[in-house]
Amino acid sequence: MNAEIITIGDEILIGQTVDTNSAWMANKLNLIGIDIIRITSISDKKEEIFKALDNAKQLADIVLITGGLGPTDDDITKKALAEYFNTKLVQNKEVLNHVEQFVIKRKAFMNERNIRQADVPETCKVVQNKIGTAPGMWFEQDNCIFISMPGVPFEMKEMMNNSILPELTKKKSDIHIIHKVILTQGWPESKLAEFLEDWEAALPEAISLAYLPSPGLIKLRLTAKGKDQSYLEEIISEQVQKLEKLIPDLICGFDSEKIEEVLGKLLIKYNQTLSVAESCTGGNIAHLITSIPGSSEYFSGGVVTYSNKSKENILSVNKSKIDHYGAVSKEVVEEMAEGVRNLFHTDFAIATSGIAGPSGGTEEKPVGTTWIAVSNGKRVFSKKFVFGDHRGRNIQSASLTALNMLQKLILGKEM
Amino acid sequence: MNAEIITIGDEILIGQTVDTNSAWMANKLNLIGIDIIRITSISDKKEEIFKALDNAKQLADIVLITGGLGPTDDDITKKALAEYFNTKLVQNKEVLNHVEQFVIKRKAFMNERNIRQADVPETCKVVQNKIGTAPGMWFEQDNCIFISMPGVPFEMKEMMNNSILPELTKKKSDIHIIHKVILTQGWPESKLAEFLEDWEAALPEAISLAYLPSPGLIKLRLTAKGKDQSYLEEIISEQVQKLEKLIPDLICGFDSEKIEEVLGKLLIKYNQTLSVAESCTGGNIAHLITSIPGSSEYFSGGVVTYSNKSKENILSVNKSKIDHYGAVSKEVVEEMAEGVRNLFHTDFAIATSGIAGPSGGTEEKPVGTTWIAVSNGKRVFSKKFVFGDHRGRNIQSASLTALNMLQKLILGKEM
Repeated sequence: MNAEIITIGDEILIGQTVDTNSAWMANKLNLIGIDIIRITSISDKKEEIFKALDNAKQLADIVLITGGLGPTDDDITKKALAEYFNTKLVQNKEVLNHVEQFVIKRKAFMNERNIRQADVPETCKVVQNKIGTAPGMWFEQDNCIFISMPGVPFEMKEMMNNSILPELTKKKSDIHIIHKVILTQGWPESKLAEFLEDWEAALPEAISLAYLPSPGLIKLRLTAKGKDQSYLEEIISEQVQKLEKLIPDLICGFDSEKIEEVLGKLLIKYNQTLSVAESCTGGNIAHLITSIPGSSEYFSGGVVTYSNKSKENILSVNKSKIDHYGAVSKEVVEEMAEGVRNLFHTDFAIATSGIAGPSGGTEEKPVGTTWIAVSNGKRVFSKKFVFGDHRGRNIQSASLTALNMLQKLILGKEM
Repeated sequence: MNAEIITIGDEILIGQTVDTNSAWMANKLNLIGIDIIRITSISDKKEEIFKALDNAKQLADIVLITGGLGPTDDDITKKALAEYFNTKLVQNKEVLNHVEQFVIKRKAFMNERNIRQADVPETCKVVQNKIGTAPGMWFEQDNCIFISMPGVPFEMKEMMNNSILPELTKKKSDIHIIHKVILTQGWPESKLAEFLEDWEAALPEAISLAYLPSPGLIKLRLTAKGKDQSYLEEIISEQVQKLEKLIPDLICGFDSEKIEEVLGKLLIKYNQTLSVAESCTGGNIAHLITSIPGSSEYFSGGVVTYSNKSKENILSVNKSKIDHYGAVSKEVVEEMAEGVRNLFHTDFAIATSGIAGPSGGTEEKPVGTTWIAVSNGKRVFSKKFVFGDHRGRNIQSASLTALNMLQKLILGKEM
């Protein structure tokens, strides 16, 4: 089975919004064996929507549409779809009820616009929007499935994960596609690719490999395609085992796991607690950790000590060490880690101190220079990195590297 | 004049790469008055490329193509274009010379693949690639301009900025497009749209309006289109002034500004400092603030007090208040704000305490319930919000709301 994605919204065509929805959907559909043949972005105009739907149904079995479902007048997708499928809008009681509860919860009042959100084309199957007010719509016509979703990424993802992907999985063909993603941390892409050259050359024909680099993390994606699912699973698992022998210290997770999630599971397993002291990462490590539901079980808290004074006053870092070695140094970052561990009385601690940029670099310590320390109470391990020129990238790379260093410390791996 | 963008590459269709090139190009073209009518992403297949070009030239005056120009076998755009325009590939001496210098500079050797990079379709005008090896190509046929560029963002941007945009500017029509974006914070989209209904209905015909919602922030985008640029600028500025009178307490920034950036500028202007105490936002407020270069000038630091103990020990919150009112309460969040202000000796402080979810809610305090406090040392202001069910959204909404509350406090606006 194949699909086309249509994203609707002037904000995409004037370059105000980067369409991240399409890549997310394409990735998810791919995982259940549905090929994406085209992605089209069009404006909020009825004629454009009609033309795009006409074009799409000639090629695709499934047409996924996002955007244009808001309550304001520039959002016309629902009306356009009703007209395209030659039906009329009728009020859906279930949706109305949901919208009412949604509005009341936020201590707001129902108005005409909210009520209109509950109008849906009569011939569609409604896809409930659990976290927003615009319902999704599922149409079937001329052997083609058309699914319309909100453009708000949160709402689209919830709808896809909980309603649409499970439905589509039931309908898919007998060609299986299996993906296995291996998360690695520590080496740049070119070094990793060179080291894995022989392994890559010897991959079975049914398996293809892709490198997916992002700041602080390189993902390896193995894709196996064929009719015999158990054979595909077997050859993928063989290759993962080979990788685990080749790069044991680089692998830090699998598939859609996040490092912060893997780390959280480890801390729960060993019943241990964690605190963080952040300078250059500015709260991002705490933010990553606390983005995981249930993190309050193991995360006691953190301190962002952006100024030297706060490193001394709150984390008890020795002033003379800051004066002598500078804030971005082995000596200071190790004292930060010990300081925060004592402050929060935790088993483990992470500390970062670096020059995120774009300014603040020197010849000796250029922008990107970062010291990271991890402590288990018995010993503090620290390491220096030089990331790059870009502030946002440096913050993210330092954060993921720090989380991975702690994971290695807990597992007794080589740093 | 109008344009279609075609991005070529399997990596986009399997969701491995987010297409950021299109938004960048669309924005640049828009600024010189060229409308983008469609963005299409297709795979590295000759038939798909032909079909996309056929479709594009029916609608567009200009077709911008990126991707598929690399030296590896999966890159077929150049060959496909030569066939589509019924011409043959010939070696271009200037390109060959450039590729040679490029390769030598990198201490590498010329190979057959490098040499083939200098082959170009005979009828095209070559667009030199100053920072890479794949040249751009400019074709004109049937009153339509076709421009092919590399997919590597750096190379595409260099080519656009230094060669293609200057050329297109000469050819463009006399229609001007002006955008103005107004950032608002505090009301949901439906309430805002209802309140602004009369204003929207009275907008001059040359202006169109769009609502762009995201967690914690609604953007209003005004677009004016016409021949007389100074008239367009005048009517847009009139409408912005009207909005500033209608919703003075909701506007928190303009155009591509971020709230954290606007706040930073204010703190620098008044030479004031800030610290944050975060519970439910888990470090995200500190992360947003420190993502802005130069934030160390006004941001002293923050504390993430995830446990009640740390609220008492580090922020000196009264234990009896936590026991009596709970951690998510006016009393506790106000003490957190004062506690962190004293700890970091700052002029202002922000504090948050809430139930981010998905679990932890009660009937009285459901998931999403959040108390936010801001303090200027003389007074603490606090407010309760009920955001929603989704952890990530709640964290982001609470963070932006808190930053905006502080902005209002500094400016003496109504909370």
